[in-house]
Amino acid sequence: MVAQFEVLYNSQESKARLGRLQLTHGVVETPVFMPVGTQATVKSMTPEELKRIGAEIILSNTYHLYLRPGHELVREAGGLHSFMNWDKPILTDSGGFQVFSLADLRKISQEGVTFSSHIDGSRHFFSPERSMEIQMALGADIAMAFDICSPYPYEYNEAARDLEITLDWAKRCKEYHSREDQALFGIVQGGLYEDLRKRSVEELVAIDFPGYGIGGLSVGEPKDLMYEMLEVTVPLMPEDKPRYLMGVGSPDCLVEGVLRGVDMFDCVLPTRIARNGTCWTSEGKVTVRNARYAKDFGPLDPNCDCYTCRHYSRAYIRHLFKAEEILGLRLTTIHNLAYLINLMHRVREAIKEEKLEALAKEIRGLYPN
Amino acid sequence: MVAQFEVLYNSQESKARLGRLQLTHGVVETPVFMPVGTQATVKSMTPEELKRIGAEIILSNTYHLYLRPGHELVREAGGLHSFMNWDKPILTDSGGFQVFSLADLRKISQEGVTFSSHIDGSRHFFSPERSMEIQMALGADIAMAFDICSPYPYEYNEAARDLEITLDWAKRCKEYHSREDQALFGIVQGGLYEDLRKRSVEELVAIDFPGYGIGGLSVGEPKDLMYEMLEVTVPLMPEDKPRYLMGVGSPDCLVEGVLRGVDMFDCVLPTRIARNGTCWTSEGKVTVRNARYAKDFGPLDPNCDCYTCRHYSRAYIRHLFKAEEILGLRLTTIHNLAYLINLMHRVREAIKEEKLEALAKEIRGLYPN
Repeated sequence: MVAQFEVLYNSQESKARLGRLQLTHGVVETPVFMPVGTQATVKSMTPEELKRIGAEIILSNTYHLYLRPGHELVREAGGLHSFMNWDKPILTDSGGFQVFSLADLRKISQEGVTFSSHIDGSRHFFSPERSMEIQMALGADIAMAFDICSPYPYEYNEAARDLEITLDWAKRCKEYHSREDQALFGIVQGGLYEDLRKRSVEELVAIDFPGYGIGGLSVGEPKDLMYEMLEVTVPLMPEDKPRYLMGVGSPDCLVEGVLRGVDMFDCVLPTRIARNGTCWTSEGKVTVRNARYAKDFGPLDPNCDCYTCRHYSRAYIRHLFKAEEILGLRLTTIHNLAYLINLMHRVREAIKEEKLEALAKEIRGLYPN
Repeated sequence: MVAQFEVLYNSQESKARLGRLQLTHGVVETPVFMPVGTQATVKSMTPEELKRIGAEIILSNTYHLYLRPGHELVREAGGLHSFMNWDKPILTDSGGFQVFSLADLRKISQEGVTFSSHIDGSRHFFSPERSMEIQMALGADIAMAFDICSPYPYEYNEAARDLEITLDWAKRCKEYHSREDQALFGIVQGGLYEDLRKRSVEELVAIDFPGYGIGGLSVGEPKDLMYEMLEVTVPLMPEDKPRYLMGVGSPDCLVEGVLRGVDMFDCVLPTRIARNGTCWTSEGKVTVRNARYAKDFGPLDPNCDCYTCRHYSRAYIRHLFKAEEILGLRLTTIHNLAYLINLMHRVREAIKEEKLEALAKEIRGLYPN
């Protein structure tokens, strides 16, 4: 069976747990953060650079790759791993989130979604079957079920109606999916409504997936509401399956998610803010473009041993940003991903030593809401 | 003495020669191509990537670094090597070329040049002394004398007048320059006029520099005129000093320059065309954005073993360019620089074996005028 998951240790002081997820292209220690490579590349990085900072699994986007260069082309290239020169695990999302957040002129029916490309306006149709077909062509280690994901606020009736469609789609995904070296995860939806989340989990578990995404969070709601919803959703989920909180990736949210029993995360945040010159450090946020760093010849983060922090000063990185040089955003991207991956390493150590509460306190202090 | 130069071998079939240039930060085998790091970074590359493709010396721009981040800041950072994390030789130009090609509202006098920054319009003054002061602060292995460089076509009277100023400035540079770990090269000017070039060389040699740039070529004139001017200028230059043809860097011009006795070259061309998706290969020019490469799963250049060609297909690189992903131009930049540096390696081998004419024939065939 693909996506064998083993819980290695359950924390006594929280719902956090240590796990190991065996995938076709390798083993992933959980809790884990997955860098996002939307268009078959983690923006500005080579695969070797990702490995050097300890990335074990990355995410790529079905919607984007379907539109450009096209999943059939990726299949011809030997699949996404070969196309992009990454031989470790990959997860592809279902395209659902992007269809609902990026594409235009959506028309949803029980059958699927018709939409216009955000690139050229061309019309396309995604259904559960189509999403599976595309994801099987891409050939990631983990595929995600096609779902409806709406932004906050989300009316009860709307959320309930969309949930029924999503559950029907989950069944159809499971039925259509046939690639044996690829795991298919279901996605829990239901907005911020406890009874809908409960129904979602129960129905998905009845279908039986080797892992479950938690969707529809981090879509605009206050963080407290997200944490609350995790507290009611996660305990309903199977203990022996990985739980993946989709689209979450700030240092504080990662730690809060782990405390509430989440195993996997992904987010564009670290790479996106890096390209604007904002970095997470052991001293909190550093916006390296600021004039105060013009003559700061120290590293971005004095407690980091990533490539960027070993070789470059804040003054140099600031110069690169002011001069609009690509190396600047390369260096901040390396650092931010290294910071998050290192944080998850510390999180795993802290779970083992029952010290995650202390680490959470530190992170909350560095990144106050 | 800095910039010890030794001619190791003089070709029998042409004016080409093999040399070795000892600089403060290392030894450079000539003929050599120097990648350009205008703003203290070779666009999109790390220093380690440059070393991996065999770069032995890079160039950086005095005009740009003076304006941003400022030479005093670079001095405080411990000099350009330390600031940009490059421990091999660097050459800085004098700022002359940029003042005459980029800056606005120039006013030239015997004293120096007043100009407006191309960044913010602020007023500045460069003189020979000021250029030396800035270049000494930057601390490159080789500094260049401050000169007047005008584009083609260049009237005789104008060229003669500018040459007299440039020769006066060369003397003043030599007098002002005092950094003992830094070599100062003079620059031969005189437009496309043989007698002016002759006068320029004679006067500069009388001042006595450890190396000489050939300026004012590759400024818009036809290639044949440039080659002709090299044929009359180079033989006038001292045999025991390195000859540096400034701003030249296409494969065919490099080979033609070496055949005419040039030892050093620099140019933004390989990195600039790379960012537009154009690559030099053993099969000639490849514009990787073209639709014909959409399903070409072979490497950019089947006879290249650079990082890009070992790991990525034309189809993938084309996808990255179409999707406007930074990794695309990183990969083409790596390849183009590797291609030129490898070409110069082949040039040095060919000189040794008296086979440079054959190599030149091959290159002329790949890049017809």
